[in-house]
Amino acid sequence: MYKDQTFNSVDEIAEHILSGNRRALAKGISMIESSLEEDRDKTEDLLKMVLPFTGNSMRLGITGSPGVGKSTFIEKFGLYCVQQDKKPAILAVDPSSQSHGGSILGDKLRMPELSRNQSAFIRPSPSKGTLGGVGNSTREAILLCEAAGFDIIIIETVGVGQSEVDVRSMTDLFLLLLLPTAGDEVQGIKRGIMELADIIFINKADGSLLPLAEIAKSQIASSLTLMTSPTEHWNVPVLIGSGLHGNGISDLWNKCLDYFYTDAQLNEHIQSRRTHQHIEWFETAAEKELMRIVENTTLWKTLKIDAMHKIIHSNNVPSFTAKNMIKEFISSSQLD
Amino acid sequence: MYKDQTFNSVDEIAEHILSGNRRALAKGISMIESSLEEDRDKTEDLLKMVLPFTGNSMRLGITGSPGVGKSTFIEKFGLYCVQQDKKPAILAVDPSSQSHGGSILGDKLRMPELSRNQSAFIRPSPSKGTLGGVGNSTREAILLCEAAGFDIIIIETVGVGQSEVDVRSMTDLFLLLLLPTAGDEVQGIKRGIMELADIIFINKADGSLLPLAEIAKSQIASSLTLMTSPTEHWNVPVLIGSGLHGNGISDLWNKCLDYFYTDAQLNEHIQSRRTHQHIEWFETAAEKELMRIVENTTLWKTLKIDAMHKIIHSNNVPSFTAKNMIKEFISSSQLD
Repeated sequence: MYKDQTFNSVDEIAEHILSGNRRALAKGISMIESSLEEDRDKTEDLLKMVLPFTGNSMRLGITGSPGVGKSTFIEKFGLYCVQQDKKPAILAVDPSSQSHGGSILGDKLRMPELSRNQSAFIRPSPSKGTLGGVGNSTREAILLCEAAGFDIIIIETVGVGQSEVDVRSMTDLFLLLLLPTAGDEVQGIKRGIMELADIIFINKADGSLLPLAEIAKSQIASSLTLMTSPTEHWNVPVLIGSGLHGNGISDLWNKCLDYFYTDAQLNEHIQSRRTHQHIEWFETAAEKELMRIVENTTLWKTLKIDAMHKIIHSNNVPSFTAKNMIKEFISSSQLD
Repeated sequence: MYKDQTFNSVDEIAEHILSGNRRALAKGISMIESSLEEDRDKTEDLLKMVLPFTGNSMRLGITGSPGVGKSTFIEKFGLYCVQQDKKPAILAVDPSSQSHGGSILGDKLRMPELSRNQSAFIRPSPSKGTLGGVGNSTREAILLCEAAGFDIIIIETVGVGQSEVDVRSMTDLFLLLLLPTAGDEVQGIKRGIMELADIIFINKADGSLLPLAEIAKSQIASSLTLMTSPTEHWNVPVLIGSGLHGNGISDLWNKCLDYFYTDAQLNEHIQSRRTHQHIEWFETAAEKELMRIVENTTLWKTLKIDAMHKIIHSNNVPSFTAKNMIKEFISSSQLD
C-alpha cells in the first residue's frame, strides 16, 4: 500500500516520477487529464523536465472486440513481460460508452494479479473518454510512463473504428486479438482494422476451439496476402494462443522482439513512424488551440450569431453558410 | 436503362433533380463528392436552387456489424417502403476499409431487387470514405435526395464507433440491427452504440434462432432500462424479425410511423434535433474552412517549418510546440 503522499511542486513530482514512484506518475497523469489552464502550464513544465528520459520503450497498441478475452490476455502478457525483466505500463482507452465514460469493470477486477505487481502500472481510461477519440492526454501519459522507467507501454482499446486509428497513431506496433471463428464475417468485420495490424493473435485457442483457431489462422493468413502490410519490411504474422492458459504468449513476445530489434531497416522505419506521429500530434493540437482562441474573439461570436440565424430561421445550407462566414471573418479579423 | 444523358448547366441538373430524374441526382451527388473548387461553387448553386424542396423525409440511420444481415434487411425494408407508396433512397457510408475505400460488394449484388426498383435510389459509399468519418458530402446528398422526391432516406453504416456517431448526427431515427445472440458479449460490444439507438431490431430471428432471439430481446430490453433513451418522449423498442423472410418488417415500419407522427412533443423534438444537427454541421464546416485558409498563409507555413524543426530535431513535445506556435501566429497575423 502506498502512503497518501503529497507533492509540493512540479519539480518534486518530476523527481519522483524519474525515480519510478508510481504515485507521482499517477499524479502526473491526472495533471495531464485536467482541463484547467493552470494545470496545462504545470504539465508543460513537467513534460519538459522528464523529456530527456522518454522514448525508450516499446509502444504497443492492443485491440479486439469485447468477448475476445482482452483483459485476461493483457494480464498474462504483462506478467510475461515482468518475467523478462521488463516493466509494463497499461493505459486503457475505452470509448465504449459515450454517455457514461469509463470502463465497466475496474482494473483490479480485470487484471487482478498484474494490478498488484510492483513492476507494472495500470491506468484506467480517462473518464472523459468518448467514442470520438483519444486525444492528447494518452500521448502525454506515454511520455510520463517512459520517464518513470516503464519500458513496455501498452495502449489498450475497445471497439472497432476511430479509436484504433488513434491508438495506432501513438504506438510502434499494433496488435489485433481475434476470436477463433472462421468465415466471411470475421474477415468482413476486421477488414479496416486488419489493415492496421502489425501482429494478429488469435486468442482462446484452447480446448475444443483449437481446431477452429487453426482454420481461422490459415484463413486470415491467406486474406492478409491480399493486403499490404501497414509497416514496410514486415510481414504481418498470425499467431494462435490463449490468454487464459498462457500458451502462445512467448511466441508473441519473440515476434515483438523481432519487430523491434532484428531488422535495421525496420528499426529505422519505426523511428520514422514516431516522427510522423509527432507531426500528426502537432497538427491536431495546433488546430485545436487555434480554434479555442478564434472562437473566443468578439468578431467570431458576432459573425456566428448571424450565421446561426441564417441556418435556424432561413434554413440555409450549413456548409456554405460556414464558408461565407469564414470569408468574412478572414477579411475583417486582426485576430487579437 | 437510362440513356447516357448529359446536362449542360447547374440549372438543368436542378430542374431534372426536382422532376425526380435519378441520373441527374447521381450527377449532383458526384458534384458534391468532388473536391474541385469549381464543383464546390456549382454545388452551392445547386443546393440553393433545390433547398426549398428539402426536409420532407424520414431520415433513418441503420447500423449493425457485418454478419448481421444488413443488406438483406435493407433490401426487404426498402421494398416494404415502396409497397407503402414511399420512395426510399439508400446512401451507404462504409468506413470498413481505410486503405482501399469502397464497399466489398457492389450494391447490385447486395440488394438485387431494390437496386432495380424504379421507386428506389441506391448510392454506393463514396470512394474516399475512411474510418475517420463521413463528412459533409452525405449531409448534402440527403438534401438532394429529398429534392428528388425521395421521402425515406436511409443512411447505412458498418462498424462500431465514430461512423455511428456521425450517422446519428445526420438522421432523425437511428436503427440498430443485432444478431440473435445473448449474453454479456452482445451487451458489452453494443453499449456505446446501444445508447445511440432509437429502435433495436434483432435480425435473423428465424428457424432455430427464434428462441435465442426471444431471449436476446428480453435481455436487451432489460439492459435498456438502465440507460436513458437518446430521444426524449420515446422509449426505445426492441423488435425481432428476419430480413430474409420479411417477418417483423411491418412492425418496424409501424414503430417508425409512431416515432415520426404520433406524439406532437416527440415531433417537436425531432425538429429540434435537426436544428441542432445543422448547427453541428456548420461548426465542423467552419473549422475545416478556416484551417484550409490559415494553412495556406505564408506566416503559418513559416512558423510551421520552425515548429517541425523543434519537434523533429530537438524532440520538443508536440502539444506544447503547437500551443506556442499558435500564440505567435495570433500575435503576428493579419490573416490576409
